[in-house]
This record gives sequence, structure tokens and C-alpha cells, in this order.
Amino acid sequence: VLIARAQIDGVVRHLIRLDEAWVPVRNPFGGDLEPVGDAVSLDGAKMLPPCDPTVVLGMAHNGSIAERSIAPQAFMKSARTVVGDRDPIVVDGRRGPVVVEAEIALVIGRRARHLTLKDSLACVLGCSIANDVTGVGQLPLDSFWTQAKAGDGFTPLGPWIDTDFDPDAALLGLQIDNQVVAEGSNRSLARTTAEILVYVTEHVALGPGDVILMGCPGVTHEVVPGQQVTIKVGGLGSLTNSVIESRAGRGSA
Amino acid sequence: VLIARAQIDGVVRHLIRLDEAWVPVRNPFGGDLEPVGDAVSLDGAKMLPPCDPTVVLGMAHNGSIAERSIAPQAFMKSARTVVGDRDPIVVDGRRGPVVVEAEIALVIGRRARHLTLKDSLACVLGCSIANDVTGVGQLPLDSFWTQAKAGDGFTPLGPWIDTDFDPDAALLGLQIDNQVVAEGSNRSLARTTAEILVYVTEHVALGPGDVILMGCPGVTHEVVPGQQVTIKVGGLGSLTNSVIESRAGRGSA
Repeated sequence: VLIARAQIDGVVRHLIRLDEAWVPVRNPFGGDLEPVGDAVSLDGAKMLPPCDPTVVLGMAHNGSIAERSIAPQAFMKSARTVVGDRDPIVVDGRRGPVVVEAEIALVIGRRARHLTLKDSLACVLGCSIANDVTGVGQLPLDSFWTQAKAGDGFTPLGPWIDTDFDPDAALLGLQIDNQVVAEGSNRSLARTTAEILVYVTEHVALGPGDVILMGCPGVTHEVVPGQQVTIKVGGLGSLTNSVIESRAGRGSA
Repeated sequence: VLIARAQIDGVVRHLIRLDEAWVPVRNPFGGDLEPVGDAVSLDGAKMLPPCDPTVVLGMAHNGSIAERSIAPQAFMKSARTVVGDRDPIVVDGRRGPVVVEAEIALVIGRRARHLTLKDSLACVLGCSIANDVTGVGQLPLDSFWTQAKAGDGFTPLGPWIDTDFDPDAALLGLQIDNQVVAEGSNRSLARTTAEILVYVTEHVALGPGDVILMGCPGVTHEVVPGQQVTIKVGGLGSLTNSVIESRAGRGSA
């Protein structure tokens, strides 16, 4: 099942894909996927990120098998950085270079805490595509990565949640201005979905709508304002965002 | 003005203190402090944290004037760790020692981004009392502090927001089981409220209900299950939470 969220005539609707159409549902995060109305048209609608997370976590140094020798670590991203398909990534030239990182997002469907390897996957509602935008110029300046990870639009997420997708086998491609610049597979990640969930929920309580960015298997590239970034994931879809220059400066708040 | 939030007969209400009584208001974070009903009784009501943040940030190494020589840094706490007055702090004995840290919380009232020293304070709706509970045994294991800062109930906040309180002059006292164990003043902090806001909003967008924990001026102590922790702040109030042992173990999710 595909689950999306859109603002249609000013109203935020959760939607599922049914018979080639989008049909409203009440609350997919409570497990309620019963249609509550007729199919809607998305012409003129604004696609939103498919969930509204309280907690957004990213897995650090999880991008290659070699990193399995390092203990797992998760960093937090501001939930205010989450934007949808077609929303802009805002780059502030004064903060140094910025890269995009193509990743699979695990979207949590229920309260999850102290999971075991055996029971961990049941908390995942489904998967979406995420771009873990990172101001790499800020990484050496801040060991918490707060400065690197919290820029406006720094977590594009979407276009939908697929409840039947296998995150551990995902193939990801990154295009900049329609040119393929990197490709990779989640089979290269240091840790599996189940291992990530056990680690994270040992330390952090998760709940409906929360998101874990699984880590980037080398599918990354520097971007500059004016470019368009597309992440394509086989069997899941594609997520496209433009990169724009921040107009913010001192005193322009 | 004092602003609180409570669950009364199952309904969440925002309240302001008026003539020695609590009166409902619609949405204090939109600046709307007009009463919308008669005074309510809090007998039997459950006090909630006075806001429901999207972003919770703590200031690292901001607790003493000496730390002014280090560049400012902010870490993120999970918004799911925020609990109210009288809620429990849950300690997991397998994770090493835990300390409580008495701090002032700045509660944001409007969108705040790229603030200047001159305009920064206007985004603050008011101040509350926060306990930045920290699993210090986890600090050396995780440079992001995710493992140390995200325990259940690890951010007690309350009991209300005071819109007239001066955070830079706050005097904080910490009691454990009614014994004073530490006292301190925000005059000892490395950076002022205005400096903190300029730093944070240079890197992170804030919005209504978000919280910045200013840092702990030495008002800290180790706690164990069975203890009761009270933070008293002159002119602001007091925040009391019990420490309980986690019953969570592998497989108990």
C-alpha cells in the first residue's frame, strides 16, 4: 500500500493509493487504512511529507560494511527540517559546502521502545525516500552536527510511504539536473533495518510518524543553488527537490 | 503572566493565571491570551508541560564563565522526553549513572531564524523550569549525546511559563528528598539569553512552543530510583519529579 499526504483546497488529507487513484483515509499511523471518501484529484494539490514526525534520527557512519567495526550511533535532526517532494533545499553560502545524501527512511507506525531483533520490524509502517542534506563545512565545527544538519529544507521526505518495500535491498540512484551522479544499495549498509531499530529503541522512544534515516550507501554529491536533485529508488519512486540560495542575512529575520 | 497547560476532564486546555485563578485561553503561542471561559479548578486535573515543542535544544558547556572560551554548541533532545511537573524520570540501571541538571527553559513564541543580538529577545514567549536529565554513563559512548539525553521523562518542564521572568538573573536551587544539594545562578552561564538565541537561530529554525535549555550553572546531582527531585527558581516556581526504575528489559516492549 502507498500512503501519501497532501493539502487539497487548504485541507490536509492522508491518502492511500487504490485502483490507480488516491483515496482519503483517516489516520494511517493508527493503522486505520479504511477509505473515508471518494478518490481525489491531486491536480493543484500540494504534496506534503507523508508523515509529521516528532523525532527524526539519522544513522551516522552506517554507509558501508567496513563501518560495522564502529559502534552504531544516531544523531537527531530537527523535525522542522522535514519538507516534501518538490519543496526547496535552502543553502546558505556563508556556511560552506552542502551535500545531498540519498537514503531510505523508516517510518514508524506505533510506539517502539526496547525492541528485540525478532520483534523490531513490526513497528515500521513503511518506507519512504529521504535526502539527508548536510552542510559538510559545518561538520568539523560542531561534534553534535546540529550546525550541519538543521538547515531549512534539509530533510526532504516523500513522495509517499510504501508499506510493502524491503529497505535492506533498496537500490538508490542520485541525479543532479537529470544526470546520474551516484548509485548504491542498502546491501552495503553496515547494519540492517532490524539492527538499527534495536539500537535506536534501546536509547530513544519512538512513536507514530517518527522517522529513521538509515544512512547513505555512498549515494551523495555536493550541490549548489540552481540545481535540481532527484533520488530514484527502484520499486519505491522518486523524490525531487530544487536547491535555492538563502536570502537570509543578519537582520532579515 | 503565567501560562500553563492541563488536562481537565480529558480535554487539554491552555490556561493563564488571572486574579489568583486559572482561566482558559485559546492559543498562547499565537499571542492570543484572551480568556475564553470562566476560571477552572485544577483539583484532579493533570498538569502538562506548558508547551508541546517540535524542537528541544540544550546548550552544551555553557554552565560557567570559563566556558566562554569554547565556541557555543547546542545539542538536540527528543521532544518525546518532555514531561510535566510530577511526572516520573525513568532510570535504566543498566545504562550507568544519571544526573539531574537544573536549568531555565526559554519557550519560543513565534518563528525565529537568523536573529540579531538586538532583536533576539522578542521571540521568547517566556521562561519555564527544566530538568536536563542526563545519563552521564552514556556520554563517553556517544559523541552526539543521543544515548545520554533521550531517556523516558528525561526533560521535565514546568510547571508554567512566566512571560515576565528575567532568565539571565535566575537563581536556581536543587533539592533531593527535600535536602538542598546545589544552588547556582544564571549569571554564571557562559552566554546570555540573547547570545544563545543568536547562535541557535543562525543554524536552526525555531517556532512556537520550541524550547532551549540554557545550560546548567553547576546545579546538578546524581539521582537514583526512589528519590524525589525539586528544582526551585526564585520568582518562577518549582518543578518536582520522582525518579523511578525502568521496568523495561529486552523483550518487554
